[in-house]
Amino acid sequence: MATHKLLLLPGDGIGPEVMGEVKRLIDWLNSAGIAKFETDTGLVGGSAYDAHKVSISEGDMAKALAADAIIFGAVGGPKWDAVPYEVRPEAGLLRLRKDLALFANLRPAVCYPALADASSLKREAVEGLDIMIVRELTGGVYFGEPKTITDLGNGQKRAIDTQVYDTYEIERIGRVAFELARKRKNKVTSMEKRNVMKSGVLWNEVMTQVHKREYPDVTLEHQLADSGGMMLVKWPKQFDVIVTDNLFGDMLSDIAAMLTGSLGMLPSASLGEVDVKTKKRKALYEPVHGSAPDIAGKGLANPIAMISSFGMALRYSFDMGDLADKVDAAIAAVLASGLRTADIKSEGTTAASTTQMGEAILKEL
Amino acid sequence: MATHKLLLLPGDGIGPEVMGEVKRLIDWLNSAGIAKFETDTGLVGGSAYDAHKVSISEGDMAKALAADAIIFGAVGGPKWDAVPYEVRPEAGLLRLRKDLALFANLRPAVCYPALADASSLKREAVEGLDIMIVRELTGGVYFGEPKTITDLGNGQKRAIDTQVYDTYEIERIGRVAFELARKRKNKVTSMEKRNVMKSGVLWNEVMTQVHKREYPDVTLEHQLADSGGMMLVKWPKQFDVIVTDNLFGDMLSDIAAMLTGSLGMLPSASLGEVDVKTKKRKALYEPVHGSAPDIAGKGLANPIAMISSFGMALRYSFDMGDLADKVDAAIAAVLASGLRTADIKSEGTTAASTTQMGEAILKEL
Ligand SMILES: CC(C)[C@H](C(=O)O)[C@@H](O)C(=O)O
Ligand SMILES: CC(C)[C@H](C(=O)O)[C@@H](O)C(=O)O
Repeated sequence: MATHKLLLLPGDGIGPEVMGEVKRLIDWLNSAGIAKFETDTGLVGGSAYDAHKVSISEGDMAKALAADAIIFGAVGGPKWDAVPYEVRPEAGLLRLRKDLALFANLRPAVCYPALADASSLKREAVEGLDIMIVRELTGGVYFGEPKTITDLGNGQKRAIDTQVYDTYEIERIGRVAFELARKRKNKVTSMEKRNVMKSGVLWNEVMTQVHKREYPDVTLEHQLADSGGMMLVKWPKQFDVIVTDNLFGDMLSDIAAMLTGSLGMLPSASLGEVDVKTKKRKALYEPVHGSAPDIAGKGLANPIAMISSFGMALRYSFDMGDLADKVDAAIAAVLASGLRTADIKSEGTTAASTTQMGEAILKEL
Repeated sequence: MATHKLLLLPGDGIGPEVMGEVKRLIDWLNSAGIAKFETDTGLVGGSAYDAHKVSISEGDMAKALAADAIIFGAVGGPKWDAVPYEVRPEAGLLRLRKDLALFANLRPAVCYPALADASSLKREAVEGLDIMIVRELTGGVYFGEPKTITDLGNGQKRAIDTQVYDTYEIERIGRVAFELARKRKNKVTSMEKRNVMKSGVLWNEVMTQVHKREYPDVTLEHQLADSGGMMLVKWPKQFDVIVTDNLFGDMLSDIAAMLTGSLGMLPSASLGEVDVKTKKRKALYEPVHGSAPDIAGKGLANPIAMISSFGMALRYSFDMGDLADKVDAAIAAVLASGLRTADIKSEGTTAASTTQMGEAILKEL
């Protein structure tokens, strides 16, 4: 059995608590002889700042580069609101994405049947919802230069951010979306603002070409990002795979996650390119929810998104799709049994702490 | 009685039809001696392209600059998908915004009680909803330079868009938001991505300063645009006034409009600065919905958003708040009577064409 090297980066807020439940799962997989994971742990975000005055240390970056997959909790919190921009908690996550070239961010927006009523949308609009948002993660306005604030004198400053996209960046994220669509409902919706942005014009053009050249069997639709956002709210089930740029993807995937009513449940995967030689790809798995500093340390956090993110690691990094399916099924079963953490509690269900939820999922497995 | 000069720009798709109903209202106001409007008409968008190969002619731009207010329909449609980027339909609207310096876009997101069930959200989440989105309209990534596509050779192109904000641009849109909040529920939520964008850092800093210096009596909250979008979907009633940049405003205001279930009903105002000498401001009023080419020319379009936009003109350009209130009341009364255009039709209501709806509102007045 191959040994897989995992780097656990719990981060801030509820990160360490939910990571604890993944650790429990990994220990069990190891001891039951189902898999062989070697884990190491590092600091990222505010906790790295508190320890080393950086958002991630060079040592932990080296570990990240050497790992087969990174399991990431969450970063940020009001405690670090005033730290310098360069070392703010988010900078650690952005550096990991950039230095590991994790260009493809997969964010499934799935509505767990047991939780459909937690959505602000009507049940019929979200029940059975299953869409995949593919967000470009290493380009666009997140990393383009110049990115500056200049003092113009007279009390005036000028802030500049730059959105940059090259053909190859759009091509490769397009391929990820089309490949995923082939295993799903075979439809991709590409979203941009070509009526206003040149990057939208190029995005649209390249998607159209990749589609025509390599994936004519998949249905491709184009939508302006603003009306796409509207359509998402109006009738999300019309979508299968949505592919969009870094900033639109940030907004749209969060909105899609909220639609499901299952925010505390949703995982994500950030993937690099497959290495031609090793056939491996760098990858980072992280829950969609944030660090929720208000409930941190109280045993209230929902570990499901984190566990489900580890499930994505099994699927996308370690080719253990069957085991990943079992993890998903265990989560669904525990929910169906009525166990709920505070964020998804409703009448007639049984309250569970972070640990109780983690244990219940493990027991189900 | 002062004479007010209006320029009507019906545009494309359903634009001319819904504008017809505003024209009917204006004619009646004139003939009943309630107001004195002098109207002229121009071409914009695809219709201007068909006539002159531009998205708006210099002649019509001159009329726009001379008018007291512009009443704008909608632009765009598949017919013009292949026209050169510089003369695409949207370019006409963007030029009007820029050349008239219409920096403040006011987009109320109101849920008409009679239509609460048309929302994909649960009734309790949207019933009684009344928020105002204040979107910066002449800056940011819409107009920043460079905005280019460059051929890099080897089949590679590079697209660049630039987000630029200066202190004064953020200050003046902030003031618009705070002033509006004082007449409403006294709360402003500013949204940006300061954790990723330098323009977000400056936006946050300037809003904080304007608040402290000039509007300490108003509550100011800051939210990241992605979680702000989530909160909008989760519980929109937590907001009063939202102030945000051009691109986030485009996305967030469309999403907010869709939440209400009243998209065909929502107006918008785009305002310039008040001239110190004349005390007047340039202004353009336009419905939030688009040109809906699929239903154009069939008498199916809902004229309410257009009429309501004219109502905003009465309020913001001509100081006729009382008359504007009457227009709003007439719309509410007609809806309460059960009359519905196709887009908002539901069981037990009476179908109305564009004209029938316009006439009914006029009769109510
Ligand atoms: C934490 C932040 C930098 C990040 C982003 O904007 O990408 C987050 O919102 C996300 O979506 O993963
Ligand atoms: C038509 C288009 C250029 C415009 C925009 O992006 O601003 C529209 O979406 C809007 O919101 O008014």
